[in-house]
Amino acid sequence: MLYFDSDYMAGAHPEVMRRLMETNLEHTVGYGLDEYSEEARRRIRAECAAPDALVQFFVGGTQTNATAISALLRPYEGVMAASTAHINVHESGAVERGGHKVLVLPSYDGKVSARDVAGYIRDFYRDDTYEHMVAPGMLYITQPTELGTLYTLEELEELSRICRETHIHLYLDGARLGYALASTAADFTLRDIARLCDVFYIGGTKCGALFGEALVAANPKILPHFFPIVKQHGALLAKGRLQGIQFATLFTDDLYVRIARHANELAMKLRAAFEQKGWPVVIDSPTNQQFVKLPNEVMDQLRLSASFEIWGTRGETETTVRFVTSWATTEEDIEQLISLI
Amino acid sequence: MLYFDSDYMAGAHPEVMRRLMETNLEHTVGYGLDEYSEEARRRIRAECAAPDALVQFFVGGTQTNATAISALLRPYEGVMAASTAHINVHESGAVERGGHKVLVLPSYDGKVSARDVAGYIRDFYRDDTYEHMVAPGMLYITQPTELGTLYTLEELEELSRICRETHIHLYLDGARLGYALASTAADFTLRDIARLCDVFYIGGTKCGALFGEALVAANPKILPHFFPIVKQHGALLAKGRLQGIQFATLFTDDLYVRIARHANELAMKLRAAFEQKGWPVVIDSPTNQQFVKLPNEVMDQLRLSASFEIWGTRGETETTVRFVTSWATTEEDIEQLISLI
Amino acid sequence: MLYFDSDYMAGAHPEVMRRLMETNLEHTVGYGLDEYSEEARRRIRAECAAPDALVQFFVGGTQTNATAISALLRPYEGVMAASTAHINVHESGAVERGGHKVLVLPSYDGKVSARDVAGYIRDFYRDDTYEHMVAPGMLYITQPTELGTLYTLEELEELSRICRETHIHLYLDGARLGYALASTAADFTLRDIARLCDVFYIGGTKCGALFGEALVAANPKILPHFFPIVKQHGALLAKGRLQGIQFATLFTDDLYVRIARHANELAMKLRAAFEQKGWPVVIDSPTNQQFVKLPNEVMDQLRLSASFEIWGTRGETETTVRFVTSWATTEEDIEQLISLI
Amino acid sequence: MLYFDSDYMAGAHPEVMRRLMETNLEHTVGYGLDEYSEEARRRIRAECAAPDALVQFFVGGTQTNATAISALLRPYEGVMAASTAHINVHESGAVERGGHKVLVLPSYDGKVSARDVAGYIRDFYRDDTYEHMVAPGMLYITQPTELGTLYTLEELEELSRICRETHIHLYLDGARLGYALASTAADFTLRDIARLCDVFYIGGTKCGALFGEALVAANPKILPHFFPIVKQHGALLAKGRLQGIQFATLFTDDLYVRIARHANELAMKLRAAFEQKGWPVVIDSPTNQQFVKLPNEVMDQLRLSASFEIWGTRGETETTVRFVTSWATTEEDIEQLISLI
Repeated sequence: MLYFDSDYMAGAHPEVMRRLMETNLEHTVGYGLDEYSEEARRRIRAECAAPDALVQFFVGGTQTNATAISALLRPYEGVMAASTAHINVHESGAVERGGHKVLVLPSYDGKVSARDVAGYIRDFYRDDTYEHMVAPGMLYITQPTELGTLYTLEELEELSRICRETHIHLYLDGARLGYALASTAADFTLRDIARLCDVFYIGGTKCGALFGEALVAANPKILPHFFPIVKQHGALLAKGRLQGIQFATLFTDDLYVRIARHANELAMKLRAAFEQKGWPVVIDSPTNQQFVKLPNEVMDQLRLSASFEIWGTRGETETTVRFVTSWATTEEDIEQLISLI
Repeated sequence: MLYFDSDYMAGAHPEVMRRLMETNLEHTVGYGLDEYSEEARRRIRAECAAPDALVQFFVGGTQTNATAISALLRPYEGVMAASTAHINVHESGAVERGGHKVLVLPSYDGKVSARDVAGYIRDFYRDDTYEHMVAPGMLYITQPTELGTLYTLEELEELSRICRETHIHLYLDGARLGYALASTAADFTLRDIARLCDVFYIGGTKCGALFGEALVAANPKILPHFFPIVKQHGALLAKGRLQGIQFATLFTDDLYVRIARHANELAMKLRAAFEQKGWPVVIDSPTNQQFVKLPNEVMDQLRLSASFEIWGTRGETETTVRFVTSWATTEEDIEQLISLI
Repeated sequence: MLYFDSDYMAGAHPEVMRRLMETNLEHTVGYGLDEYSEEARRRIRAECAAPDALVQFFVGGTQTNATAISALLRPYEGVMAASTAHINVHESGAVERGGHKVLVLPSYDGKVSARDVAGYIRDFYRDDTYEHMVAPGMLYITQPTELGTLYTLEELEELSRICRETHIHLYLDGARLGYALASTAADFTLRDIARLCDVFYIGGTKCGALFGEALVAANPKILPHFFPIVKQHGALLAKGRLQGIQFATLFTDDLYVRIARHANELAMKLRAAFEQKGWPVVIDSPTNQQFVKLPNEVMDQLRLSASFEIWGTRGETETTVRFVTSWATTEEDIEQLISLI
Repeated sequence: MLYFDSDYMAGAHPEVMRRLMETNLEHTVGYGLDEYSEEARRRIRAECAAPDALVQFFVGGTQTNATAISALLRPYEGVMAASTAHINVHESGAVERGGHKVLVLPSYDGKVSARDVAGYIRDFYRDDTYEHMVAPGMLYITQPTELGTLYTLEELEELSRICRETHIHLYLDGARLGYALASTAADFTLRDIARLCDVFYIGGTKCGALFGEALVAANPKILPHFFPIVKQHGALLAKGRLQGIQFATLFTDDLYVRIARHANELAMKLRAAFEQKGWPVVIDSPTNQQFVKLPNEVMDQLRLSASFEIWGTRGETETTVRFVTSWATTEEDIEQLISLI
């Protein structure tokens, strides 16, 4: 069977596993206060050109989002996000469990528009009854989005400008950030992200780690007393060094971006093959997720040999499906898949 | 000045005040365990033909909604509601503070459609990832809606049927229920409401009381241990008899509906006057809220003598405004207002 | 029957009712933005010598406490309180529902000691694991306490000093504040309270109003964006003027303290009668609550003619009971009760 | 340096690491729906003699407790626990963040007494005001306790009986359950735990895994719709198989108990050495945590070569400290430590 369901189906990149094995019998203090975690923080700060940055490790994305949003928002504030945003759809209401409303904006292939964001904020304060409504306190974006698309540097600059002018936090969910940074379409760097967003996270789970996400705030004062808040959310890993070792490894010799580039390249090959076949690629994604509309008979045949997700519901005659590559996808996997379509 | 901003600008109906005065020096136990509260519950149960109903008094609508929704939903569930629903717009995120997501449905002049409700539930369980999403656990509707419109009996029957088939609570916010029951367009009774909804509330604040809402659940088992939950929400009034006396009075000699009918009739007069003037009545509301589009110069002139709300934002040349009548609006008020337009 | 169960068994002081009747048919804007609420705020600010104070009205005490505590604490903080504190015992976990822990201190007849408070804070930060624990963010005290006792001015000064030195909010629950201010044992004024506490509330429900509490923060910056937080807690009264009218009346001609003084005087008469009988007054309360240990046969006989609460559980041969007076208690009530014991 | 601070200072048992390495490149579905997780659940169910048991994996203890408590309690309920309980002290208020109060009982070297539990429940319902108080809905115990002590089978039977008679959930936090099961003092089995507790968890983090806890409910109906609740708490691991592989390994050939037995034996050697020296062992712990009172000069000297925790605060002349062994502690470590004292 060929696996294209998602980018978290295999374990960790072998280099990451090697380091976990090497260090396994060492004793260190817990909760991320160890030397490996410190090294990882140092490497991330350097890569972000944010020498004072708070870097806090988490185990998974929902946990990261829920904790950061709780810590950043005041009780009467909500978080603006695209209708397709992970926090709005696929986190079982974790944001609401934390007491905050998701303020939904239109999604353009996964992205929000600066125009909509600015408009929402402006209209909110123009409404005579705004004190009875949930105030926008944060903008949540994903890079790449849930649909594989990217914000350009100009778009990020514009969103950042609007947020700073209106005193709203800009938060970037980078569950798949590696694939964004490695994309040939990327005109931004990690430094840009760190400079333009108040808080963001560098995804590990989907980008080469066993698990783990690194939350970064260039200005640490934005998240005071964050440690007990992390603990309170059940998000503090006892053996924090596991996250430290993994991120230190991923941020050595550019491993994080290198393995994502590999996945992107394979995704592009796949996309070319779909296009050649004449099957409509429904979203212009320059990253590791590709969405294509397949005739149902093709899809059904293909499912016998490959696993992938139906995107939405099965259509009458054709259905949109998603293929995802990762560091664990091989050239052979792709060639075999292409040979089957 | 003529007051048409809302239906909570005056105190209580004089008959309600008379009873509060008469009983003021009596001593009773607190928290709604007194005889007046019991009398009110008895009268409401009789009117609802729901002899076993749980009847719990609250002070205001947001509090009522937040408490009932918290009590009815399980942690992973959310509440479906029209985009225009009070809980979605004007309760400062009280539902989310309680940990639950509002699942937004299209609003048709304030109403949800049975088709959309059924479709939402069906699509939810068809989605392979539904266990990562907020499950619909309740449908919230308002009667009359925030836009003054009414669900017909057939529509209520249909929504109730869908909810019962799918094991979803049907909750009706009756902040202005009096105006619905008293409407000439109403083809339903309070008994129908009590029969078709799992939980609903009879609004007092906007319908003749100083304050107070009466939550009703025909089957009390749906809200076990509700008393401490009410207390926990800060919603338990020490001198609960104040609510008892008010509702007992409103439910004597049909006062509740009589005073709402008066308000509706005046609203209809006003509407007729607008139509005669040729100003578009933008929503077909058979209750005490009327929405009309006025030329800006007319609106500005009128505001010198009358108060009313702009609905949304001021337009370039004309603006939609809302006029609200209540038990406290007099024939003279309406005649004077009409003479000014 | 003679009523001594509590101080919220009758309606409002006749003067308060008179004003509610007089103004009943007036139209005003809602939510406390009216002139009566403004007048009440002005009077309270003057009485507190706190010209910039935020004054926000609530309906009841649990609601007031829950909203203020939510607004003041950061997620990782808890509130220190005596084990007997109302928030720790009788609010059905409203503080915890808001996400915060009550950090329990020993209760000395309802009071905390400065020594314990200082010790708790000191020990907390000395503990190596304090970042895994709930940080003390607020001290909650009641004046008078649930047991009728009073903090002296010196004690309040000391608690305030500790709190300010350690950057912890001092919050005073004044559900029965009138009885404290009117006590012959009081060596403090309302100005002292306003000066020494960051936030406190002046109780109306138990002190002459139908309902209502006035939260005061001398420095309004301590509660930014408080309005939507109040709304979110379901604590914003539509007809806010009802609270304004009541507090404006209570703070005219010293009515608030005068009626409490009357209640205290009657309580002292009762206490003297108990002492004369030789029944042990178990708490030295200089306010309107009196706790006495009665032989069971006396208690049982008395209950035929008078209502009052058992404090804790019935003893083998004697039982501690509580008698509460209020503005509504008359000289005749007390004389009659004394004649019965 | 010799490490005795805690039982989570090293990585995973080599056998666990070996299996993680072996399976690393395999592709599986996520979220615990894979074959390894299923195998682990099967093994755990067998070991518990609970064929229908719900077994849900978590990453850490605080997360496990918070999620289970949220799922089990109704809004008005709280959880009884010893004052020393981890949820009461060292989880940064995670239970309260979930909306529930910890109802504190006396701690006898970490344990609650059946007498206190029964008394608390009885007194609660005898209190006339109990509907204004937080109802006991669960009893939380730890096995071994935070102080290394154990409940006997008889004690567990008694607590279970009380809980079932009063319809209160019995929850057992087994963060260190291996050390309990492996103790020479243990007169209970895992089957007893599964039979007597409604819900409990088998700790992995402190007992041989990199991370992970396995929550078990013999009757799965007690936790309906648990999956989205886990997700909502940010506690669902994407690569759930990591937990499956670890627990399947630990529950093969009795590895889980074998490695704990090793740790206990070393702890007993250490204890004997302390006793021989005449230093008071302050708690009679038959598991891997040992508490001893050391003269300060001995302690200070020892800290140059060994790490361990001060328990509480440093005393004037002697101080209580904690030594913890684990699967990673060697005979040599213990001998070296003993040679130093």
